[in-house]
Amino acid sequence: MVVKREGPSHRQRQAMATKAQIASAARALFAGQGYVGTTIAAIAESADIPAPTIYSAFGGKAAILRAIAWEVAGTLDVDRAHDEALAQPDPRDGLRGVANLQRRQFEQMYDVVDIYQEAARTDPDIAQDVRTIAANRERAFRRHVDGIAPHLAPGVSVDDGVAIYLTLVLPEVYRTLVIERGWTPDRYEDWLANALIAQLLTQERQDK
Amino acid sequence: MVVKREGPSHRQRQAMATKAQIASAARALFAGQGYVGTTIAAIAESADIPAPTIYSAFGGKAAILRAIAWEVAGTLDVDRAHDEALAQPDPRDGLRGVANLQRRQFEQMYDVVDIYQEAARTDPDIAQDVRTIAANRERAFRRHVDGIAPHLAPGVSVDDGVAIYLTLVLPEVYRTLVIERGWTPDRYEDWLANALIAQLLTQERQDK
Repeated sequence: MVVKREGPSHRQRQAMATKAQIASAARALFAGQGYVGTTIAAIAESADIPAPTIYSAFGGKAAILRAIAWEVAGTLDVDRAHDEALAQPDPRDGLRGVANLQRRQFEQMYDVVDIYQEAARTDPDIAQDVRTIAANRERAFRRHVDGIAPHLAPGVSVDDGVAIYLTLVLPEVYRTLVIERGWTPDRYEDWLANALIAQLLTQERQDK
Repeated sequence: MVVKREGPSHRQRQAMATKAQIASAARALFAGQGYVGTTIAAIAESADIPAPTIYSAFGGKAAILRAIAWEVAGTLDVDRAHDEALAQPDPRDGLRGVANLQRRQFEQMYDVVDIYQEAARTDPDIAQDVRTIAANRERAFRRHVDGIAPHLAPGVSVDDGVAIYLTLVLPEVYRTLVIERGWTPDRYEDWLANALIAQLLTQERQDK
């Protein structure tokens, strides 16, 4: 029997460090001069890693972008955050929980979301990714709205609730308030939580 | 003294009809296959007008797009609508007025707004137009928020009010609710009016 080694080998650790260096350089270039405007040669120069190494480590730009997104998304633990929000006995606390998740997502990866949207216009694989991500997001939102259906305001169906949810968490909303208008992420999170609560839930009592 | 002729001549009317025919064909093509993906040759074929006539009537794609936007915007009388909204004694009625204006704008020209945003990515002149339009919109919104400053909710400065206003009237919000989720323009207008009132104004009394 082969005994499984504990953790990655030295060689594997080196390969991981190289990939992280490439991803970090690529992320800055994509955000700064656009996905389309960034070449593998430019990434190679900025990361100080030969282009053939980049091709053999990733395969191409789309794979680098995907790796960046997976890396950041992994730290956010989105599924657990949704589960916890849904488990809150007070639906307002659940909506505050998802507002916090959205804030953390945009704070950590608004640039990546923006790059994805740009890349999707020219790269069919990335476009497919964007569709898959959108479908997953909608599924999570719908599950949440379904879970709080008894508390929805009069005239707000589950479909309406999902539509309002999808609208309020648009990346363009974060861009306008935080990036363009200089709101703090804290203030964005409060705004989002209050808007979700005000627009989705029956206002049983006033407590600001 | 030269006596000014009443109205356009036969020749002028013919030229206007030709331009309208070109603009109409171009608008459908821009919306359907994108601004970048639409050639003058394709517009010529679809409008059944020779390409040289299109060049001499407009000069190029950007000029056609501008003519489309001017034509639609002219029917909306945006400045008067803003003045009327601002003149309302009840600030809630003023916000209902601007919600109605936004609804009419998007209903009549969401496709043009979308084409502008796409075209701005590759055409510097259109990008400059987009910046000018955004600055004009913001000026009108700020004038409105300034005008209702005494009624703003506690903690909402004029700058905050402008930021919230700009966010709620984003084209992406209209796209999500009406185009993607199938809300009627009526419902969008109600949603926008209620969201503006709830987020900007002191809630003096409850009247739904």
